[in-house]
Amino acid sequence: MIGRESPLEADDRWARAAWSYLAEPRSPTLQALLEADGPVVALATLRRGRILDRALEVHPSCRPADLDGWAERLAELDLDGIARACEHEDLTVLVPGDLEWPEGLDRLGLPPPCLFVRGDQDLASLVERSVALVGSRAASEYGLRTAADLADGLAQRGFTVTSGAAYGIDGAAHRAALAADGPGVAVLACGADRYYPAPHRGLIDAVARTGAVVSESPPAGAPYRWRFLARNRLIAAMSRATVVVEAGLRSGSLSTAREARDVHLPVGAVPGPVSSATSAGCHMLVREYGAVLVTDAAEVAELAARVGDDLAPAADHGPRRPGDGLDATSFKVWSAVPVRGAVPTERIGLAAGVRTEVLHGVLAALEADGLVVREAGRWRKVRRKG
Amino acid sequence: MIGRESPLEADDRWARAAWSYLAEPRSPTLQALLEADGPVVALATLRRGRILDRALEVHPSCRPADLDGWAERLAELDLDGIARACEHEDLTVLVPGDLEWPEGLDRLGLPPPCLFVRGDQDLASLVERSVALVGSRAASEYGLRTAADLADGLAQRGFTVTSGAAYGIDGAAHRAALAADGPGVAVLACGADRYYPAPHRGLIDAVARTGAVVSESPPAGAPYRWRFLARNRLIAAMSRATVVVEAGLRSGSLSTAREARDVHLPVGAVPGPVSSATSAGCHMLVREYGAVLVTDAAEVAELAARVGDDLAPAADHGPRRPGDGLDATSFKVWSAVPVRGAVPTERIGLAAGVRTEVLHGVLAALEADGLVVREAGRWRKVRRKG
Repeated sequence: MIGRESPLEADDRWARAAWSYLAEPRSPTLQALLEADGPVVALATLRRGRILDRALEVHPSCRPADLDGWAERLAELDLDGIARACEHEDLTVLVPGDLEWPEGLDRLGLPPPCLFVRGDQDLASLVERSVALVGSRAASEYGLRTAADLADGLAQRGFTVTSGAAYGIDGAAHRAALAADGPGVAVLACGADRYYPAPHRGLIDAVARTGAVVSESPPAGAPYRWRFLARNRLIAAMSRATVVVEAGLRSGSLSTAREARDVHLPVGAVPGPVSSATSAGCHMLVREYGAVLVTDAAEVAELAARVGDDLAPAADHGPRRPGDGLDATSFKVWSAVPVRGAVPTERIGLAAGVRTEVLHGVLAALEADGLVVREAGRWRKVRRKG
Repeated sequence: MIGRESPLEADDRWARAAWSYLAEPRSPTLQALLEADGPVVALATLRRGRILDRALEVHPSCRPADLDGWAERLAELDLDGIARACEHEDLTVLVPGDLEWPEGLDRLGLPPPCLFVRGDQDLASLVERSVALVGSRAASEYGLRTAADLADGLAQRGFTVTSGAAYGIDGAAHRAALAADGPGVAVLACGADRYYPAPHRGLIDAVARTGAVVSESPPAGAPYRWRFLARNRLIAAMSRATVVVEAGLRSGSLSTAREARDVHLPVGAVPGPVSSATSAGCHMLVREYGAVLVTDAAEVAELAARVGDDLAPAADHGPRRPGDGLDATSFKVWSAVPVRGAVPTERIGLAAGVRTEVLHGVLAALEADGLVVREAGRWRKVRRKG
């Protein structure tokens, strides 16, 4: 036995939290171990010093270097401390199978073992109708204005705007969504209790208040460079579509588009002047990646609807969710009702694209099913508890 | 008999010239008559007052209104006068089957009965490697600059730039091609002896000196509005690719893109700011018409090469042309050699994308076949005489 063992290690959820501390994101070896043995047994195997033997059994192509750091980090692991930090910082630990676990993450070949979430909203509901708006940190005035226009229009259409809280396009998108009273999701490369970049502290807090701040790294986790690339797969997989607003040919935001494509989610790109280096990445996406050229929020909404509305409930996805089993019209209406900030009937009709005559009946049925609730003539989703 | 008959009416070429005066472009009835009877017999039938009967036989869906104007215009026809004007204005009358007849026109369902061409160049050679650059008359400064950049780059790569000599994008493209010493083709909606718009007189003359000014209307033909739309199909069909540089949603240049698509030629569109109304038509083409987004001359050249280099010689296309029967590499090299203004070997290699070691052997073989000629270390195509 090495390191300080905590009774929490016997708990699936906290064992996953421990793994998020021990292993860097996207470890194929960890994924194989979690699938074969589960987080608790895998952690016990690591404590017994037997993890390399077991890893070679379940993932024959693994190299010892893949898990070199695990034993060293195990010596430093303070799982009780992580749990205390989560309580103190009001972070929820979500694991696969939770009702709040975003379904889209199950598309990933290497999903995070758990998520740390700041904010009171139900993350699964938040991202049910979410678009990722991403782009260069070194954005032009044109890019910033376009990001804001798109985020505003998407928020007005009932979409959650998901991004990475970075300088440039990310920040412009988050701010405009907040200004339009739309919920947002910020996915960080550092712990969800930290602020990166530091000057975006106020912005990140605002997103947490109205939506969610999400990380796969435990509290206090540092924003290592490789974590940004890993983080981008979460932004892509948690959204119905990923739109690159402005990006140079070497912008990291192009990796978010690649991640979306890899999990077969639609990718949009905003064109710009051909003379602008900060649009060259967007043009490349359209030319070489089959990204859809988008010019306004309506076109982005169409892109997000294209696949999202066809999204068949995958088999073996754990417990049923509210919304499962609804007919197409009811699902559209239900999706358009926000979780917080009740909205009037007309706005739901607009967002869902459903005629008023039909709308009243559908809302009444959803209310009878306990899926939505009416407050002073306005509607919101019923919150689910995990 | 009505009207003044001319002995020239017995000649296929001049009978076609007469039809270009009698019928407006894109007449399905005329096309059926030309296919069934040829221009000389059809003209004689018109003179005998029997054209409606015959038209109903060869084109049962024709309406009397389709050929109402023909008899009236026949009374005004002065074919000897047209022939004199052609001689005076140095216009050549090209008909299908001529070596100089652009092969691409055979793609059209309703090709012109003949073409009137001003300029000494062989039109077929000129357009063998031609790109249409078209766009709004009311272009922005961005559009004008981009049109010029593309035309310059295409001229440097040995492409002929074809356009409509209009204000805005057309004019900018023609001027930049001329400035780069590249040949150009201007297709007019009025007679090739006229200048429309009038202030482009100098520009149109310059294109005629170095390339060709082309019209399907006879000398003195007026630039009627419908002739612009008809003219656009010639621009598209005579080019390997059509690129819309800048266009609003109602720009006539979008019809050129549609014509190119209708004859299965590639269409490119240049993106611009999403906030610019003059780029909205280009974005629409990419989103809804499957146009390829292009940002520079290299991408346009690639677009033009894609189909052009695969262009299989169609069956029943009349006499063989120089270039037929060459292997792919030789064809590329031969295509890259200009008809006028001999160029050094390296420039041909650059344009053709063929390595220098290979290039020398290919050029020597083409020279031996009498297809190219060397002048003071520079190469040009051997002019063909029709």
